[in-house]
Amino acid sequence: MSYIAPIKDMLFDIEHLANIAQVAQMPGLEEAGLDTAQAVLEECARFNQDVVAPLNVAGDRNPSSFKDGVVTTTPGFKEAFMQYAAGGWQGLQHPGDFGGQGLPKTIGAACGEMLNSANMSFALCPLLSDGAIEALLTAGSDELKAVYLEKLVSGQWTGTMNLTEPQAGSDLGLVRSRAEPQADGTYKVFGTKIYITYGEHDMAENIVHLVLARATGAPEGVKGISLFVVPKFMVENDGSLGARNDVQCVSIEHKMGIKASPTAVLQYGDHGGAVGYLVGQENRGLEYMFIMMNSARYAVGMQGIAIAERAYQHAVAYARERVQSRPVDGSINASAPIIHHPDVKRMLMTMRAYTEGCRAMASVAAAAYDAAHHHADADARKQNAAFYEFMVPLVKGFSTEMSLEVTSLGVQVHGGMGFIEETGAAQYYRDAKILTIYEGTTAIQANDLVGRKTARDGGQTAKAIAAQIAQTEAELAQRDSADARAVLLRLTAARKAFIDVVDFVAGQTKASPNAVFSGSVPYLMLAGNLVAGWQLARSLLVAEDLEKVGTDIAFMKAKVATARFYAEHILNKAPGLRDSIVDGADSVTALALEAF
Amino acid sequence: MSYIAPIKDMLFDIEHLANIAQVAQMPGLEEAGLDTAQAVLEECARFNQDVVAPLNVAGDRNPSSFKDGVVTTTPGFKEAFMQYAAGGWQGLQHPGDFGGQGLPKTIGAACGEMLNSANMSFALCPLLSDGAIEALLTAGSDELKAVYLEKLVSGQWTGTMNLTEPQAGSDLGLVRSRAEPQADGTYKVFGTKIYITYGEHDMAENIVHLVLARATGAPEGVKGISLFVVPKFMVENDGSLGARNDVQCVSIEHKMGIKASPTAVLQYGDHGGAVGYLVGQENRGLEYMFIMMNSARYAVGMQGIAIAERAYQHAVAYARERVQSRPVDGSINASAPIIHHPDVKRMLMTMRAYTEGCRAMASVAAAAYDAAHHHADADARKQNAAFYEFMVPLVKGFSTEMSLEVTSLGVQVHGGMGFIEETGAAQYYRDAKILTIYEGTTAIQANDLVGRKTARDGGQTAKAIAAQIAQTEAELAQRDSADARAVLLRLTAARKAFIDVVDFVAGQTKASPNAVFSGSVPYLMLAGNLVAGWQLARSLLVAEDLEKVGTDIAFMKAKVATARFYAEHILNKAPGLRDSIVDGADSVTALALEAF
Repeated sequence: MSYIAPIKDMLFDIEHLANIAQVAQMPGLEEAGLDTAQAVLEECARFNQDVVAPLNVAGDRNPSSFKDGVVTTTPGFKEAFMQYAAGGWQGLQHPGDFGGQGLPKTIGAACGEMLNSANMSFALCPLLSDGAIEALLTAGSDELKAVYLEKLVSGQWTGTMNLTEPQAGSDLGLVRSRAEPQADGTYKVFGTKIYITYGEHDMAENIVHLVLARATGAPEGVKGISLFVVPKFMVENDGSLGARNDVQCVSIEHKMGIKASPTAVLQYGDHGGAVGYLVGQENRGLEYMFIMMNSARYAVGMQGIAIAERAYQHAVAYARERVQSRPVDGSINASAPIIHHPDVKRMLMTMRAYTEGCRAMASVAAAAYDAAHHHADADARKQNAAFYEFMVPLVKGFSTEMSLEVTSLGVQVHGGMGFIEETGAAQYYRDAKILTIYEGTTAIQANDLVGRKTARDGGQTAKAIAAQIAQTEAELAQRDSADARAVLLRLTAARKAFIDVVDFVAGQTKASPNAVFSGSVPYLMLAGNLVAGWQLARSLLVAEDLEKVGTDIAFMKAKVATARFYAEHILNKAPGLRDSIVDGADSVTALALEAF
Repeated sequence: MSYIAPIKDMLFDIEHLANIAQVAQMPGLEEAGLDTAQAVLEECARFNQDVVAPLNVAGDRNPSSFKDGVVTTTPGFKEAFMQYAAGGWQGLQHPGDFGGQGLPKTIGAACGEMLNSANMSFALCPLLSDGAIEALLTAGSDELKAVYLEKLVSGQWTGTMNLTEPQAGSDLGLVRSRAEPQADGTYKVFGTKIYITYGEHDMAENIVHLVLARATGAPEGVKGISLFVVPKFMVENDGSLGARNDVQCVSIEHKMGIKASPTAVLQYGDHGGAVGYLVGQENRGLEYMFIMMNSARYAVGMQGIAIAERAYQHAVAYARERVQSRPVDGSINASAPIIHHPDVKRMLMTMRAYTEGCRAMASVAAAAYDAAHHHADADARKQNAAFYEFMVPLVKGFSTEMSLEVTSLGVQVHGGMGFIEETGAAQYYRDAKILTIYEGTTAIQANDLVGRKTARDGGQTAKAIAAQIAQTEAELAQRDSADARAVLLRLTAARKAFIDVVDFVAGQTKASPNAVFSGSVPYLMLAGNLVAGWQLARSLLVAEDLEKVGTDIAFMKAKVATARFYAEHILNKAPGLRDSIVDGADSVTALALEAF
């Protein structure tokens, strides 16, 4: 099943919702206007459609394999990654100083979606490199930057994140890996890390592991964790590769999905200690790791959108082709393609609306990220940073949760064929399930939303977003279309539900933590649903205007129809969630532990 | 991961909701009281826990294999099936005349749940035999019954259902297999059938295929389909097995789940024609097939409940064991088992509440089936038949849809471990996805609910159920507990939402079929949710009473807590669904076909 990048929809969001014209006015982003976006997206689409997408099924059927410490990736992956590197794609969003292209996230996010739609297992390798690059940019010494950044940005080397240990998953305070300082300023690192994506592979010359460990004498818990660079191969002074470092891949996992992406167990220090280089200061590792994680969390949200898009395209193609039963309205007096059946339309519209809604949300979040980093005005930077920080758990949590529903519907549209592996729909269903788990489960995102993003500022950021939504409602109220009215009705109800929940969360987190955290994930789902629905409401306003002046009428009509569907079939879940969270908190924890 | 049958919960439903004491007053069921139920369930639990459950993982890792027309099942399956047959389990619900035990569905359904919890792939073999037995009992000639029934009921032979062809899935009017009448009264059957569960295997001596085909000269479409028995091996006059019939397994499918259950492509008549025997009359095949299907649909609903229960048990065990992070309420000042975290409780409660709610619904439906067949009073039989017929799409559709959510939550509770195949949680997620597809997709169930079960009688059966629910509300209103009040609030809102939808469906199916069928699946979800929530509300009334008199207090408290959780976190979705169905119908079909 081929993949066609939804460039038109991406550019609609970038132009009208993310407002790239404003982004391109910010210092350092002057060349990143709509024309650049279009040119980059078209080139990116060609590469991913032609080179990366065709390897997706192969990766599932012939996954990465492990033997004697060596991981061999799916045939074709290495060559594709070399083309990816040669095309400069790894450096798209990274600074020119280290060979990157310095494009804004507003454009980079769309490119990330394409890569992940094309092949999520493949995309994980550059995704992890991005995180390593960001951590080094933020906290690495000039020396570390000089040795590692250019090669990571070029894609000559790749990066990993080493957090998890068997006893330390969500709870990083339990990390036991340790690092002993040496006389030369390096450390010797010891420990076992699990779930290391592309922790070992054959696609690049070297692997730069970013590793959480405790320096000798560090305090217990999260305050005693430091971050280290541990290269697979030592790097000589001239930049050439030296001896193998003391880090070994001892196995890779047998997973339900993303099978082509090797998930390694890495053993550090079994032969005297792996040479590690401290990133930043001792005991501030978690802080730096959060920089990588915030970047990675957004990227995982994009993976949800990406796989939803791919599943949607696959399902639409099948629904157009598969002939079965007469339409219930008698419009065709013979068996017809199943896309004529209302329930198949309902499934496809659900898939489409979720995908477009989350894409719009992510695009706006990306623009806020760019403004937070590049806006000339400090207040604007601060406001945008707060908005972006609020969006990260929504983009990650809501877009991945919806991808489970969308990929499930994708299988369902195929009927019995969907359950047969050769069809390909099942792969998306299996692949997607990791997205609500890694880089912080949905519950971890929800904790972040409740704690750092809502309770900490007393709900101020959340209320500011609600006020912006009310603005959109005011614009909708000016319209006389039935579509605008229908969207207004649901958007208003959802915003009010959101405000109730924000008040509950901001007011009760300290006094009644169990009650608030009982509804943390439903709160995340409500907030994500609202923001995605809001962006589609904004899209409707734009699309109605453009339709009137004759711009791409079919596209604009489709946007309006999708926005209304979203409002009436997805956004309308918000009031029920509000009731669960605010009225139903106690029943979550009422059952005695021993009764489960 | 071991399985413990939830006998106590099953018996609670059987005694208090399904009212087995009443069932046992019906002619022919006099011995099927609560004591019998308990004895049978305990014996059934032992067998499934000890013999069948341990083979579940083995079946996934070492599935059925195909070579040269022969299917070899997972090691251990054949021996387990022989024990199943020897224990009389295949005949549990079938008449004594043919060697069965003649127990009511009220008891048999619980046994079916256990078998499916233990091993869904294994359970499919007897499930299909049950369908074949019912079809022969209903429409088979005395001669066919004499030759086949005893051996099917004993489990010496097994049965299959052959409906689907590559071009004919949901749309059976497109069936092309054909049957040519012979001078001796038999037929020669030709054609290709796909998706035939246990269509070939090594677990029994013979396989009795029930096959839909067109007799020579039959009309086009569904009115020209007849049903035939085609045995794998011919049966001699003395009942011994003769020559191989002209039906061959040409391949089995490579599926996402239920891998141990062979899904065969069967080729009929490549060597002159398979000998087939007409069941009942020509051209009435679909009618007979619906008898098998109704039985099978209920059974697939039980599969949803069964796999949800197994996933729940697996997740609870992990949540008790996995230590990670401190509880948010500070109740433990160290990392604690994750079952202490509110979001984990929310996930486990969601799994538990769905499972118990659907089990209660299915138990009550089973009792109605028994009354429809055994009640002394003709009016009562008719009423119960109407109720049961209304329940079948809900038991099938809602219990399987919820099983997708429950098995997904089961993976989620495990975090990263859930995505690793060795953990076992992923298998339930992969296995469950077939349940919303086979024996009629959820959309097909919803069409049945809309057309035959609601519009046809103008919503009369639906309204009668709503009136019964209002009775339960009246009883809740007499209680002064906060739990009863909370449940009453949500049950009333859900019932009102249901009535709105029933009015919409009954009133608009003819005039606006697109609008009604746009909401058919949401209607099914609303109705299933309501009925399951209603049965838990009834459970709460019983449990509050029994708790007061000191009966099994811990169990009764848990039942009350579960009922309330269901009301506040699941049943409260009903009003949103009502809005989608009634207000949002048009937006489902608004998008132009070419815009997808």
